[in-house]
Amino acid sequence: MLLESLREQVLRANQEIARRGLAPHTFGNASGIERSGVEPLVVIKPSGVDYAALTPDDLVVTDLDGRIVEGALRPSSDLDTHTLLYREFAEIGGVVHTHSEFATSWAQAGRPIPCLGTTHADYFHGAIPVAGPVSAEEVAEAYVRNTGAVIVRRFREESLSPLAVPGVLVAGHAPFAWGTTVAEAVEHADVLEYIARLAFRSILLGASEAGIPAHVSEYHYQRKHGPKATYGQR
Amino acid sequence: MLLESLREQVLRANQEIARRGLAPHTFGNASGIERSGVEPLVVIKPSGVDYAALTPDDLVVTDLDGRIVEGALRPSSDLDTHTLLYREFAEIGGVVHTHSEFATSWAQAGRPIPCLGTTHADYFHGAIPVAGPVSAEEVAEAYVRNTGAVIVRRFREESLSPLAVPGVLVAGHAPFAWGTTVAEAVEHADVLEYIARLAFRSILLGASEAGIPAHVSEYHYQRKHGPKATYGQR
Amino acid sequence: MLLESLREQVLRANQEIARRGLAPHTFGNASGIERSGVEPLVVIKPSGVDYAALTPDDLVVTDLDGRIVEGALRPSSDLDTHTLLYREFAEIGGVVHTHSEFATSWAQAGRPIPCLGTTHADYFHGAIPVAGPVSAEEVAEAYVRNTGAVIVRRFREESLSPLAVPGVLVAGHAPFAWGTTVAEAVEHADVLEYIARLAFRSILLGASEAGIPAHVSEYHYQRKHGPKATYGQR
Amino acid sequence: MLLESLREQVLRANQEIARRGLAPHTFGNASGIERSGVEPLVVIKPSGVDYAALTPDDLVVTDLDGRIVEGALRPSSDLDTHTLLYREFAEIGGVVHTHSEFATSWAQAGRPIPCLGTTHADYFHGAIPVAGPVSAEEVAEAYVRNTGAVIVRRFREESLSPLAVPGVLVAGHAPFAWGTTVAEAVEHADVLEYIARLAFRSILLGASEAGIPAHVSEYHYQRKHGPKATYGQR
Repeated sequence: MLLESLREQVLRANQEIARRGLAPHTFGNASGIERSGVEPLVVIKPSGVDYAALTPDDLVVTDLDGRIVEGALRPSSDLDTHTLLYREFAEIGGVVHTHSEFATSWAQAGRPIPCLGTTHADYFHGAIPVAGPVSAEEVAEAYVRNTGAVIVRRFREESLSPLAVPGVLVAGHAPFAWGTTVAEAVEHADVLEYIARLAFRSILLGASEAGIPAHVSEYHYQRKHGPKATYGQR
Repeated sequence: MLLESLREQVLRANQEIARRGLAPHTFGNASGIERSGVEPLVVIKPSGVDYAALTPDDLVVTDLDGRIVEGALRPSSDLDTHTLLYREFAEIGGVVHTHSEFATSWAQAGRPIPCLGTTHADYFHGAIPVAGPVSAEEVAEAYVRNTGAVIVRRFREESLSPLAVPGVLVAGHAPFAWGTTVAEAVEHADVLEYIARLAFRSILLGASEAGIPAHVSEYHYQRKHGPKATYGQR
Repeated sequence: MLLESLREQVLRANQEIARRGLAPHTFGNASGIERSGVEPLVVIKPSGVDYAALTPDDLVVTDLDGRIVEGALRPSSDLDTHTLLYREFAEIGGVVHTHSEFATSWAQAGRPIPCLGTTHADYFHGAIPVAGPVSAEEVAEAYVRNTGAVIVRRFREESLSPLAVPGVLVAGHAPFAWGTTVAEAVEHADVLEYIARLAFRSILLGASEAGIPAHVSEYHYQRKHGPKATYGQR
Repeated sequence: MLLESLREQVLRANQEIARRGLAPHTFGNASGIERSGVEPLVVIKPSGVDYAALTPDDLVVTDLDGRIVEGALRPSSDLDTHTLLYREFAEIGGVVHTHSEFATSWAQAGRPIPCLGTTHADYFHGAIPVAGPVSAEEVAEAYVRNTGAVIVRRFREESLSPLAVPGVLVAGHAPFAWGTTVAEAVEHADVLEYIARLAFRSILLGASEAGIPAHVSEYHYQRKHGPKATYGQR
């Protein structure tokens, strides 16, 4: 079996998004990529299978174009979004898609989440952007792949770095998050949900969309992610 | 004992709506129908009995007019709504009524839930409609049966298909959901609650009632329910 | 030891309001009354003791004026509200005070909860009223007793029956609920919290304060409480 | 090992804020101080370590200027806020920082929590104030220490007593709470979160910012904290 270790990580990630309540009703999927071989290989969960029943064998291995390399089950119906993100964002090693409650509510409202506090600034550099919606032509052509395309387009337009802004809201749909590993992608999907909860309440209490001063958000972001990071035991 | 397998399914469905938090304080009931015999038979929970204490024996079997065929206990006080739905919606095999928190809040506001995202579009074709309220004459004549009648009337008026829109909000009351089986009805009741949670937050964040573009909602609905469905392992 | 059975019921009620999340941080208390003896006796929890640690021995027995008849610990600081309610509402056998989250939010807003649906109508006949606030003179004279007095005054002013409206919101404070037994008082406190959750969301979604038509609320209330009640297995 | 008992208390406090859901994603830290020795010593959790994995050995002991006296791990990145609070608020024995959901939402909105009810009045004397934000100069000079400085400044400006108002919201950041012991600081952080939840809903329901009458809030505060306190078994 190919990629045994990555299969384990991707399996755990899929179970973890269910366990943390981010993906009720199998609304969600996680994948990871191994880029070190001759050809990059993606491991993703199969479509519509209950998380509790998943085993490493059930996972599907594909190439970067989504062609199945190993696996008896049909891959997640969102596969083409994952592979497009892997093709375009060379820095990322894992992708997580959820329909988590508050992040999805922001996505449905088509509204970016402004940076209203240091919880946000510790993980996301600036607002969490909204991509899409996907146009009628894009849906007709290739809906799932173009869901990835509208994400990438938004990042290019705003000159955003995928590792500095490790997540996005797809308008009228739900969030995607990513990271250097699939475990980090899960963490970002979970933090994104928490940020969405905080921001929802803050906005109802009258918080300004302008958010926190740049000198505070920069300090927090650099403290965790800059070259002189002081957070944690590194 | 008649309908042993259906009794098991209906029992599990009633326990499941309690376990998922959809029916606090025994505010809820599930039923199933067996249409293959000489005469269709309905299995429903008894009235006001704690879910934890229910056994298959406690369930009540009635005909399509609500006459008890088997069972020592009084059937759910909502029986006549269930039987009317079974009479009018020939496609459905199970009905679930809950007072789940957010769906009931929308019902109390008398407001249909617009299709604001793909979570909704995957399960419900268009807005989740509001039926009723039941008029003074209808209450006086036969309140419970007429609760079913106002649901059916709304579906006829809007030319809705019960399997494409597997649930409804009764104004000033609470949701009903259904499916081809009672297990599917539970799933629809649960998803309806989740959709209601998402929509509540989206609306407070300023989402437009217009909802997502038709090309997206059609794509999602057809992907799961159309003749060329690609979701899951079928 | 006096009133062994009532002590057990009151103990269980106090534990139950904690277990159901209605009284975080020991913000709550339950009492029961035995009216059949020569002199009515009240059993109430002691003040500021953790629910988990309570034993029947810890409970305090007082007369209707709050004089301790049995018990080594100081009674709940809300005792005088309970005894006043027992003196004035002869029909009730148990009183529960909580700071449950949504009911307390309505109390803090000083706003009665309108009857917006059948969940409400099944348990409370009409709006859940707001009593108080207690005036400066009343606080100075006897704050806790006068908390009871403002409740009774509101019920007299609006000609409300304590069994038809088994609970109230004290403005700027929190809810009180009651019933014919202390177990029923717990049930009413819990349903009141659920009604408060539903109504909060409904109001934010634009529900009219007018609430559901009288013919529906009357039907529901009478179905559970009227002389021809059809709900449950009675 | 120094301060064995205080290490145990601080460990338990750090675990407790995680267990109560106040500090998801290790967003939080608790410390305690021993003032009785020749030199006061602070015990604080290490930075970025998962709560579940913490042992008493992992805790870091520092002096009042944050110099490490014992401990192999790097202390919490918020250490300098804690030590400044200990230097300036001589009455306090423990400090807790969380990113709890509703208190953080108020902090992000930059809005003090008005005293809307007796739950609040029992623990906090008047509104829960907002400190900061920290200015660009203060961030550049010493961000973490100056987070403490803006808290102290707000308390001096409003002549607040740290034991009468045992917590604060830092604008665009999150709450800090304290008490005479670290266990009491945890309790105050938890009650602060509950008050924030109640106030959020009350404000959305239209509660006046003016809050409850002074004669009620004074009565409640004095009942628990005044020289003639009658609450609990003291």
